[in-house]
Amino acid sequence: MGSPFPSITIEDLSPSIEGGQFPIKRVPGQSVVIEATIFKEGHDAVRALLKWRAKSSHSKSTETENRNSKNQSLWQEIPMKLLENHRFQGSFQVTSVGFTEYTIEAWGDPFDSWLQEVKKKIEAGIEDLHLEAQEGAILIHAAAQRSKDNAEQQELINFAIELEKKSSLYSLKDFLKTERLLFLMHRYPDRSFSTLFEPFQQVRVDRLRAAFGAWYEFFPRSAEGKKESGSNFREALARIDDAKAMGFHVIYFPPIHPIGLTGRKGRNNSLECLPEDPGVPYAIGAVTGGHDSIEPLLGTIEDFQWLIAQVRERNMEVALDFALNCSPDHPYVQQYPEWFYHRPDGSIKYAENPPKKYEDVFPLNFYNTRWKELWKELLGIFLIWAERGVRIFRVDNPHTKPVTFWQWVIAEVQEKYPDVIFLSEAFTHPAMMKKLAKIGFTQSYSYFTWRNTKEELENYFTELTHSEMKEYFRPNLFPNTPDILPFYLQEGGRSAFLIRAALAATLSSIYGIYSGFELCENAALPGKEEYADSEKYQFKERDWNAPGNIKPWITRLNQIRNSNSALQNTHQLQFCHSNNNAIIAYLRSSEDNTNHLLIMVNLDPHQQQAATVEIPLHRLGIPYESPYCVEDLLTGECYEWKGTHNFISLNPLTHPAHIFRVKNL
Amino acid sequence: MGSPFPSITIEDLSPSIEGGQFPIKRVPGQSVVIEATIFKEGHDAVRALLKWRAKSSHSKSTETENRNSKNQSLWQEIPMKLLENHRFQGSFQVTSVGFTEYTIEAWGDPFDSWLQEVKKKIEAGIEDLHLEAQEGAILIHAAAQRSKDNAEQQELINFAIELEKKSSLYSLKDFLKTERLLFLMHRYPDRSFSTLFEPFQQVRVDRLRAAFGAWYEFFPRSAEGKKESGSNFREALARIDDAKAMGFHVIYFPPIHPIGLTGRKGRNNSLECLPEDPGVPYAIGAVTGGHDSIEPLLGTIEDFQWLIAQVRERNMEVALDFALNCSPDHPYVQQYPEWFYHRPDGSIKYAENPPKKYEDVFPLNFYNTRWKELWKELLGIFLIWAERGVRIFRVDNPHTKPVTFWQWVIAEVQEKYPDVIFLSEAFTHPAMMKKLAKIGFTQSYSYFTWRNTKEELENYFTELTHSEMKEYFRPNLFPNTPDILPFYLQEGGRSAFLIRAALAATLSSIYGIYSGFELCENAALPGKEEYADSEKYQFKERDWNAPGNIKPWITRLNQIRNSNSALQNTHQLQFCHSNNNAIIAYLRSSEDNTNHLLIMVNLDPHQQQAATVEIPLHRLGIPYESPYCVEDLLTGECYEWKGTHNFISLNPLTHPAHIFRVKNL
Repeated sequence: MGSPFPSITIEDLSPSIEGGQFPIKRVPGQSVVIEATIFKEGHDAVRALLKWRAKSSHSKSTETENRNSKNQSLWQEIPMKLLENHRFQGSFQVTSVGFTEYTIEAWGDPFDSWLQEVKKKIEAGIEDLHLEAQEGAILIHAAAQRSKDNAEQQELINFAIELEKKSSLYSLKDFLKTERLLFLMHRYPDRSFSTLFEPFQQVRVDRLRAAFGAWYEFFPRSAEGKKESGSNFREALARIDDAKAMGFHVIYFPPIHPIGLTGRKGRNNSLECLPEDPGVPYAIGAVTGGHDSIEPLLGTIEDFQWLIAQVRERNMEVALDFALNCSPDHPYVQQYPEWFYHRPDGSIKYAENPPKKYEDVFPLNFYNTRWKELWKELLGIFLIWAERGVRIFRVDNPHTKPVTFWQWVIAEVQEKYPDVIFLSEAFTHPAMMKKLAKIGFTQSYSYFTWRNTKEELENYFTELTHSEMKEYFRPNLFPNTPDILPFYLQEGGRSAFLIRAALAATLSSIYGIYSGFELCENAALPGKEEYADSEKYQFKERDWNAPGNIKPWITRLNQIRNSNSALQNTHQLQFCHSNNNAIIAYLRSSEDNTNHLLIMVNLDPHQQQAATVEIPLHRLGIPYESPYCVEDLLTGECYEWKGTHNFISLNPLTHPAHIFRVKNL
Repeated sequence: MGSPFPSITIEDLSPSIEGGQFPIKRVPGQSVVIEATIFKEGHDAVRALLKWRAKSSHSKSTETENRNSKNQSLWQEIPMKLLENHRFQGSFQVTSVGFTEYTIEAWGDPFDSWLQEVKKKIEAGIEDLHLEAQEGAILIHAAAQRSKDNAEQQELINFAIELEKKSSLYSLKDFLKTERLLFLMHRYPDRSFSTLFEPFQQVRVDRLRAAFGAWYEFFPRSAEGKKESGSNFREALARIDDAKAMGFHVIYFPPIHPIGLTGRKGRNNSLECLPEDPGVPYAIGAVTGGHDSIEPLLGTIEDFQWLIAQVRERNMEVALDFALNCSPDHPYVQQYPEWFYHRPDGSIKYAENPPKKYEDVFPLNFYNTRWKELWKELLGIFLIWAERGVRIFRVDNPHTKPVTFWQWVIAEVQEKYPDVIFLSEAFTHPAMMKKLAKIGFTQSYSYFTWRNTKEELENYFTELTHSEMKEYFRPNLFPNTPDILPFYLQEGGRSAFLIRAALAATLSSIYGIYSGFELCENAALPGKEEYADSEKYQFKERDWNAPGNIKPWITRLNQIRNSNSALQNTHQLQFCHSNNNAIIAYLRSSEDNTNHLLIMVNLDPHQQQAATVEIPLHRLGIPYESPYCVEDLLTGECYEWKGTHNFISLNPLTHPAHIFRVKNL
């Protein structure tokens, strides 16, 4: 291997994010299908191998660097097949969490070229081919030299000797078809002028939970739903068991750190704070500590570790919020004043978005002269919580901190803890949303929260699942958050919650709800998407089993997700035509296309809606003229259908969705 | 300048060929319009500069390398303007032949961000802004420090002092609109955290002839059109004067080197060669010399230099053929046997494409062990002819030699002679055609030769002029070559020649004909695109003024090209709808959109055809209801038209085309 100069053009590699600057993403067991345009000058036969290997480090590497690296695993290789017009394709499965790198090696193959030429001459009726036979024998002898297996070496030598004796078109014709010869020659090709594509491309392989999981968010101080005093970690078990019963995998807590007193906000973001007001968990830092500490009202580090052990026992895990806000009482303010913005009067600048003021929060200045200390400290915070057993971080507003910081800190954390998952909570412009996903965030919040109509949903999810985004952007769908109670939920009553739950649970394999959603809480501040009496500012009284709750619906959705691989990937999604804009229909399929679900949702929370839906029979492997049965996994009901067009009708009050499994009759 | 870490995302630069691996192409005076998506975290105001500079060397460079490079010219800068959605645009004109590199520098601007924040607070009605005023004053003082002009420095200090005194919404409101202040603050921005895009992008700037020229190809041995004996360089003047009179710029000769005797082909590629047969000029090399020598029948080096001086006096120039074939008599065969392919019987392999054999040609083996010597020798050949005054090379079949060789040799030649033009004679698959243009060929042969119908022409030229290809692929259109007499010309009679000339001369700014085209020569070998009695194998008898020749038509086309800048660029082309598939219509425009020509061609060489053509009045700046006059530059006739739809009729025997100049009445 190793031509003195590139002999082959390998270009237009796909997928390749910004020319390989950023990795594509997978979880173990998922496959990577690579295509490239590969060609050489002249008429030589070109062969190509797809090569991949797990990487010991996440940094980019070149062949030179790798020669110096000891712990590099060996390349695995598979021949790529020619599609058409010099386009080659190959695929491999990733296995281990971390980074896998891949590239292509291609070469003009002297033996294949010889075969091609001799076949042409035979076709042209050229009779004397004794020189060609000798040339072929030389190539076979050379392959024998390259062989490391004695028996195969002897086989090749025998082939060469046989070929040397042949001299005419007639004697050669059948010999060239000898399968064993072709097999052995492909096994020991002459790669002395091969070209290796650089830079090597990367796959970030995350653990399974990165691509499939249902999240349940609650404020631990609200676990018991008491109005006057909150609850603590030790009292949170009931909430966790409830989430477990509903089928969730991840328990996500807003910040659990000490809450500042200076500038503390009262109910509904009031500037007047009463002594009993618990403060906003995002105003982090007090005399009792900062980002590495726990709010005393919730408990101690030991209580927290007891809680995550309890969660783990239930086969779930805890996700923490990573919010880079400091209250005026945060220890950093005294210790590292350079990290903050100072005003001419000596005060520290609090966060503002005029006319909004956040007097309880000091933003960090990432461009201060001691930025290196700041970055290292923040890395340390991730590592402390990782050491305490946390492996998922939901990062608050990453789009207001330097992209370069996230790229660095995520790489550093995953270098030490390759199983850490980072969820980007960025609701901002598309270029930034994509960039954060490219530079390292494992999952991303999405615009789903505000996509309500069929057209909006189809456009957005087509982009997510059919553009390059499917390679690196894993959308985690939240129909609500503590900051966002969408107007659709405010106005649509209980049905709206059923509908949005069904969409979130089936349009992506990762989704989550913020607690209260299951109770259809929809009281908002007038004209805003803010919850009325938001628990960001106060203790919240709740009956977790209040009448009208949709816990059975959510439970059923999660059961269906857990037992159907079609709902365990983010990208296998195909919309189906329905002749009513209030009915959205789509096919979800497993990675290996063995499990398919046909999903239909009535987007109108107020009216029964009916539609004729076009069924992609071809993808389902159903003959056009055969009857088939669809079973609604939500209700257990079965319908016998035939052909591509079938009628459905959905009542938003009772059953706003179908999730059909198709049974061939 | 120089943030310790990238603070700004600069991405999706356009144009950028394979991520900047290859240059875009321009000629002096042409502009480069750059767009990029540029954003920063948070809400800071982002500013961006487009920067460019002529390069001393063609190699890629980074800021670090440049610091060590002495002859680097300084960056020129121009502010980029925000289009929408974080997309910025800027443009510059290239001036000097060679390489110009460009990049983008962007930063979050503290003063603009301050302005933005204060304006928001004013809008929000916040009355006490005395701290904000002081903060602004600090920024203005800092800009004063950066200013290198004493008067401007004092102005800024005065502004700062004035601002310090202000404290309220009311006093600040007008001050913020002070144009002089904004101008000076933009002149001395704080770029301490700016980000410079890397890798720097390249423009290959070629001399004007690279983008505009008409080529006339003839075999110098046929200059006098004598059947039994050829002509020599000294006898070629009449042919050159004829080409000059027709308006051509480039005289292109097939190989002029000594022709081998061994294996020499006779008439019509016959294996039997008569003593008087002159041989194929592509079988290069004899006892009298190789690629650096001249075929004795044509003359001496002195004769050649006399000829190119004559051509230069006529304001034209000579293009030579660079064909990497060696006859068995080539000096290389004895001197460097390793450069060739050897067979088991000790013979050297001649070129073959079964069943075709080229016994008079030995191909070179670019992968031989002494490849470095070979490459250097071939570079030397280019340099020898460049020293002798040749500045255009038409490279024969570059797609059968390593791409890497061309990339290297073109760079080396242009490093020494930046004005050298390379034309790629590759008729092969699209990926290779594009690659050769990307890696350095100045111009390229194209599929035009076989694109005859309206659909074929529209599809192909839309790709050439509206895809990324317009940035690097300059198509040189040849309706015929010594190897290709297309069926359209064989079958369409004289009209076919008129039509193809009009298309070639107006669809691109570079085109050429192989001599005999003007005489409508159309005798072919049966069923092939080969000329009958091709002058590749024999002397050719011709009356250069034979009746029926289309020299006046070609002359008029070249006159129109020479006096209309709309026909002097390769890419400003827009097809217009016509309601008859036999009539193609298009608008050609100058770079600066001041010169427009409306061209309509009847593609049917047999029948008069008429159509209603849709005129792009908006692009021509003609009001929809105003009458306007179109003047056919081919005939001088004028028509008064009105509105978008107008009727035309074209007779292929007399006037198969219109070239309209529009006059607003």
